[in-house]
Formats: sequence, C-alpha cells, structure tokens
Amino acid sequence: MSTNLRILATTAADFDTSFQHVLHWSAEQDHAIEERVGSILADVQARGDEAVLEYTQRFDGVDAPSVSALEISQAELQAALASIPAKQRAALEAAARRVRSYHERQLEACGRSWSYRDEDGTLLGQKVTPLDRVGIYVPGGKAAYPSSVLMNALPAKVAGVGEIIMVVPTPRGERNALVLAAAAVAGVDRAFTVGGAQAVAALAYGTKTIPSVDKITGPGNAYVASAKRRVFGKVGIDMIAGPSEILVLADGSTPPDWVAMDLFSQAEHDELAQSILLCPDRGYIDRVKEAIDRLLPDMPRKDVIRASLEGRGALIHTRSMEEACEISNRIAPEHLEVSAREPHRYEPLLRHAGAIFLGAYTSESLGDYCAGPNHVLPTSGTCRFSSPLGVYDFQKRSSLIEVSEAGAQVLGPIAAELAYGEGLQAHARAAELRLKGTAQ
Amino acid sequence: MSTNLRILATTAADFDTSFQHVLHWSAEQDHAIEERVGSILADVQARGDEAVLEYTQRFDGVDAPSVSALEISQAELQAALASIPAKQRAALEAAARRVRSYHERQLEACGRSWSYRDEDGTLLGQKVTPLDRVGIYVPGGKAAYPSSVLMNALPAKVAGVGEIIMVVPTPRGERNALVLAAAAVAGVDRAFTVGGAQAVAALAYGTKTIPSVDKITGPGNAYVASAKRRVFGKVGIDMIAGPSEILVLADGSTPPDWVAMDLFSQAEHDELAQSILLCPDRGYIDRVKEAIDRLLPDMPRKDVIRASLEGRGALIHTRSMEEACEISNRIAPEHLEVSAREPHRYEPLLRHAGAIFLGAYTSESLGDYCAGPNHVLPTSGTCRFSSPLGVYDFQKRSSLIEVSEAGAQVLGPIAAELAYGEGLQAHARAAELRLKGTAQ
Repeated sequence: MSTNLRILATTAADFDTSFQHVLHWSAEQDHAIEERVGSILADVQARGDEAVLEYTQRFDGVDAPSVSALEISQAELQAALASIPAKQRAALEAAARRVRSYHERQLEACGRSWSYRDEDGTLLGQKVTPLDRVGIYVPGGKAAYPSSVLMNALPAKVAGVGEIIMVVPTPRGERNALVLAAAAVAGVDRAFTVGGAQAVAALAYGTKTIPSVDKITGPGNAYVASAKRRVFGKVGIDMIAGPSEILVLADGSTPPDWVAMDLFSQAEHDELAQSILLCPDRGYIDRVKEAIDRLLPDMPRKDVIRASLEGRGALIHTRSMEEACEISNRIAPEHLEVSAREPHRYEPLLRHAGAIFLGAYTSESLGDYCAGPNHVLPTSGTCRFSSPLGVYDFQKRSSLIEVSEAGAQVLGPIAAELAYGEGLQAHARAAELRLKGTAQ
Repeated sequence: MSTNLRILATTAADFDTSFQHVLHWSAEQDHAIEERVGSILADVQARGDEAVLEYTQRFDGVDAPSVSALEISQAELQAALASIPAKQRAALEAAARRVRSYHERQLEACGRSWSYRDEDGTLLGQKVTPLDRVGIYVPGGKAAYPSSVLMNALPAKVAGVGEIIMVVPTPRGERNALVLAAAAVAGVDRAFTVGGAQAVAALAYGTKTIPSVDKITGPGNAYVASAKRRVFGKVGIDMIAGPSEILVLADGSTPPDWVAMDLFSQAEHDELAQSILLCPDRGYIDRVKEAIDRLLPDMPRKDVIRASLEGRGALIHTRSMEEACEISNRIAPEHLEVSAREPHRYEPLLRHAGAIFLGAYTSESLGDYCAGPNHVLPTSGTCRFSSPLGVYDFQKRSSLIEVSEAGAQVLGPIAAELAYGEGLQAHARAAELRLKGTAQ
C-alpha cells in the first residue's frame, strides 16, 4: 500500500515554491471562539465560583453542588497512584526521576542568584526567586497526557514554586487515573476538575474556592489557547502551541524502519502535525518510503498518520548534509533528529530547534517521555525566539543595586548629564543630591 | 505650598480599602485603537514598503521618495555622535560601558550552553544561541530617551544577536541627535525613521526594504503596544509596559530631601506614574512631606509631578519595616528602594520587584542611566512572573539529547509503557525498535 507522500529535491527548479507550500501553516483565530471566550472570562471574573460551576455543568456535564466538590483531594491522587498497574507506576516514577534530575541541572546551570562588586564597592547582580503560585492546565477527554503533567509540574517544583494548582476537565465525570497518578508523583498541591476557558479564568482572577495564580502553563484546545492569550499580562503564560513537528536529518546510516517510525510518532498526534525528512541520499529516501508503506497498515492510528504525512509531510532530497542543515534552520522545527553517524559534526550548524536529538538511538519519543529534557517545546518556527519550558519559566529575576558612597560620586554626574539631556530634572537632582558637598 | 498627597496608616480600620484604591490601575484597551492597528498591520503585510511610506507621511508628516530614503546611514549615526557636546558624549559612553559590563556578567552567570552525561553515557543539556535579528522600537518626539536605546540594544549586542534594527519615528522630520548618538555607541546595525504600528508591522512581516526580525523590544505609545501584542507569536516581544512605579521603604535614616526627590523622579515621567513611601516612623513621613512641599515648586515638571503624586501617590505609615516589606510584596513594584541603614536585613524579605535599590546612596535614577542593570523592568505587578530585560531575552535555548545505545535499552521500556498508556503506539514502537534483539 503506497502512501501518497511528497518527495522533493532541492535541485528542482520549483523547490522553493513547493517547499513554502509544505511549510505554510497559520493559526487562524476563530472569531466565534474569541467572542465566547471573552464572555466566559468576564463572567467568571464577575461571578466567580457560581459561573465556574455553571460552565462545568454545561460543557463537561459535571453536576456538583459547589466548586469545593470539584477539588480532587491528595488522598484521591494517592489512591489513583496506588490503583494503576505496577509497571505503569514504575515507568511514571522513573520518568519523573529523570525529568526532575535534568531540571535540577538546569537550575544549577542558569537559575541561581548572582552578584559582584565593582571597583567602587558598588554591588550589582540579580536575585532569582520562584513564582509564588502557578496553575497547570491538563487536557482531559481523549487526549489526556500524564507525561504533560510531569513536564509542567516538575520544573515548577524544582524551581521552588510555592503552590502548584492543576486544573483538568473531566467530561461526563470521567477521571483519568494515569493523569491523577502523575499529579501525585509530580507533587501537585491542589487539583480541580474544571477545564476550558472557565478554568483559565478561575486561575487568572481567582474565585472564592480556586486561588489566583501568577502564571498558567499547559496545553489546551482553541478555547483554552484563546483564554490564555487574553489573560496574559494579568498572569504569565507559557507559549501557545501550534501543531507538533519533527524534522529528521539523515545521512543514510540509520535503519530506515527507525526513521519511518520516528516520522509516524509525530504524525500520529494530529492530522496537522508535520513530519519531514531531509537526506542527501536518494536511495535511502526510497528505503524510508518503502518502510513507511510497509509499516503504516499495522499502526492503530494509521488514518491520522496517513492524513498528516500526505497533507503536511515531505521527504526532501538535498545536495548535502550541510544544505540539509541550512534548510532545517529555515524551518526551525520543534523536534530535530540528527540521525547520522557523526551527529556532532552537524550540531554546530543547527541554529534553530526546540530540541535536538543526536544519533540513531535518540528517538524523539524517548525525549517525549523520559530522557529528562522538557517535551513542551516551541512550535511553528517560534524556536527562533523562544525556548523549551524550563525551570526559568517558573522563576523571575529582580535586579540588585547597592551603590556605595564612592560609587555615587562617580555615577551621579553621568546620570545627571543624561537625565538633563532627556529633560528629566528630578532624575538629575536625585543623583546630584548624593554628591558630597551638595547642599541638602 | 502644600501638596495634597494622601497619608495612610496600616493601623487604620479602612486601610485595606484605601490601599486597594491607591493601587487600582487597569490597562483599558481602546477599541478604536485596536481596530486601526489591525488594519495598519494587514495593510503593511499586504503592500509592504508602499504602505509604510504612506503611513509615515500621514502620521509623521515625513515625505520621502522611498523607504530606503528613510534609512539613517551609519555615517549619519556617527555624525550625530560627533555633534553632541563632549560632556554628553562622555556620559553616554560611560553609561554604555557600565551597562555592557553588567550584561556581560549576566551572560556569564546564566547565558551559557551546558551539558552532562548520565551513567549510561547519554548526553543531556541545553544549547544557548543568540537570536538572528532583533528590532528595537525607540519612541520619538517629546519623550525621546537615548538611555532606552542603550538599555535595549546593549543586551542584544552582548547576547551576540546578528543584526539589530532600530526604528524611530521623526515627527515632521525632527531627528534627536542624542538618540542617534546612543545608537552609534550601542552598535545598532541599521536604523529607519519609521514609527507607530507601521514600524512594528514592517519589523514583524518584513518589507522589501526593512528586514523582518525575530523579536521586537522597546517602549511605545498605545498604537505600538497594541501592534506588539498582535504580532506576538509571529515574532517575540518584550513586555507591554504600564505606567512607571517607585516604592520607597524607609527606616527614617535617609535625608528626607533625597527620598522626596526619588519620589519626584518617578512622578515626573507621567501623571499615571506611581510613587509610594512606606515607613514605620510617622515623624519621618512628615519630614518627607515637608520636603516634597518645599522642593516641588522649583521642579520644571512640577505640574506632572503634582498630578502624579496627588492622583496615585501615597505616604504609608506602617507598624514596622517588616510590615512594610509585606506590603511591598503585595504591590510588587517596578522600582523598590530600600532606603535604610541595614538594607540587607530587609532584602531577603522582598519577594517581588523589578529592581531593588539598596541603601541611601542608590537613587533609582542612577539605575535608570548608568549603574549597569537594565532599566526596562516589569510594571503593574508583572514582576510576580517576569523579569528585567536582559541578555536572556535575546537568546533562546535548544534541548540537546544524545541517547547512548546502553541508554536506549533503559529508556525504551519506560517510554513505551507510558506511550501505550497514552494510546500513542508509534511513539512506543519507535522506542522499542532501538532495543537490542528487536526484529528490524
């Protein structure tokens, strides 16, 4: 069974046009969704718990006497952890251990306060502190990902966030034991079975029962994305995610089945997900294509995979690995596999990627679950200016300045000169008052 | 002449209500501005240079034959630097030196790539790279701040950004020599005399003449703020700034005139700026009030200062310095002065602030111009979750993962277990294919 997967070559005259066509994707904002989300936010802000309860009843079919009744207790989280198969629990705990350990290294590498004194004894630096309270949105229903609970909660935990509040919709009251177990493993402090724009509103503004938070992270549907965008400024948010993407740079040395399955593992997320292979070896591209055709019929999610590969996928024959790296930089993919014998030869050429997976053994799926780094990554080319979710997203910095008396004598005249130049005389006078011999 | 500046006491029964009243400020979004900005963005995206030229003519009264003619050459930037008084130039260069040096320390402290290998030889880490190209918006007209050019461009420069594009409106063609000189000192690569939403659109989408950038930083009016908000996602942006704020925590040991002038130096920015003093010594509060009344009539910007102090300022008598610290955490101010004999006694109690100025000699104005740390700081309580502009805003991170063959044997079963639990079979199979003894 042949997949109708486009094969392009960089040597073709119309390559740029076909390539642009493959890449094109734009997040259309649905006007109707925007309007409804706006009114849900305003309603929750005005009526609090009462509004949250009504929307939860209407959208999730959950009847509860109060928002307090929607809270999942710590005992229930622990019970969920006890209820799942031992093998699943062990996997969850092993993944959590590795993710925690990676983020602890991240904290050490870039999350500590620092300061120094200059020659005048003036102290300069930055104090790094965790956020007081964060909210984690976890999708419910068919796409419930316990791994996302770990990936959002653990960096917050490692950063030292005071309190982590999880919200998760439970359509028709169905709770996902693996999601609750992951919350127990990650150390989520409180959890509410509330979802959608109403959950984002409750976290941003606070209600009598649900405390307001300083930042909201986690993926969600179009309503959740719109709500996060709108409350940004009142609270912090992480990125707004687009469809997932994988780009494989292959030199032809990896078993073709491995690469085919890596392309599938992105494609199976969503029909809009994008899987692209770049390779200078045309024969290898054919072998990967053959593996795709052979392996696809056995995949449970074959319909989604096929739609994604045929709609947005591509196998691209390049002149060289170096050209493949250049094209990769133009794409700026979320996941970038360098499936090559000497991956470190190409890594320095790669400027833009959410995560770089080096070598044939590093399947993207290992990174998704348990290698350690975060699986929340910038999509749609936004890795040009943004980064994986990390400890730094749950910390903020305050500049520290302590000017010595001697320092004030040096800095005062400089500040005053510039302040007068900007017409801000009080700024200038404040600096000048600190000069010795200035009349008080 | 007495200023009608409110004095509150935390012991008063109605303190919480009056305090909330002082703090209340909300960024109303003007619907008319939103609509106009939306259409300007769409127009620049569709018509490029032509649209930029038309809006620049219409809004700034600048007639030019082409957008190329709006570019300020490096020679013109250097000429501006040569044209300003020697004392001004020296101040600009000294400030730049200190700001650069601080941000170099920041790069060292938190901006380097890092990696480690786990016990299986698996490599994990993060690669930190500068953005390719950034745009800096510099306001023109009456509020032209050369110090903002330094504060935006220098961290980008230190981060290693490939190209820095400055845009600055020049109403009726008036160029501010000090702004251009600052651009020369900071090493801005290209500069265009374009402003408003049309400048933001040109930087976000690119035109034939103005290159598209990866991130846009810098302050602007309501049109610029709205445009930045709208292009966010296509490009990165820094924060959207609200009115400036200063909070002074005083133990009564600083000369009252110094504190009065520090409060003025925030108030003189804008009638909406906020200046608050917290102090446990009621007699000292009266002395500061006396200094305010005495010094105000001599300030050139006394009308703005009075309006700001009377509209949004407050002198608050607290029970203790510790209580003052708690209130400061509730306010989460942009600028926080600890004007006390033992500032380090209180610093650990202060959780939320853009910048903390320790000790009587550290006037906020020294920090604004030349102490070294950035003066672009989170306002309106957003320092609860965001940070001063810094080198980190001009870098992004890519996770690095290289799983060893041995590592794949350990990680594969964990990833597969969790992937099956989430119903993502291709993810599971991709991990399992890397296990030894698996049929290819």
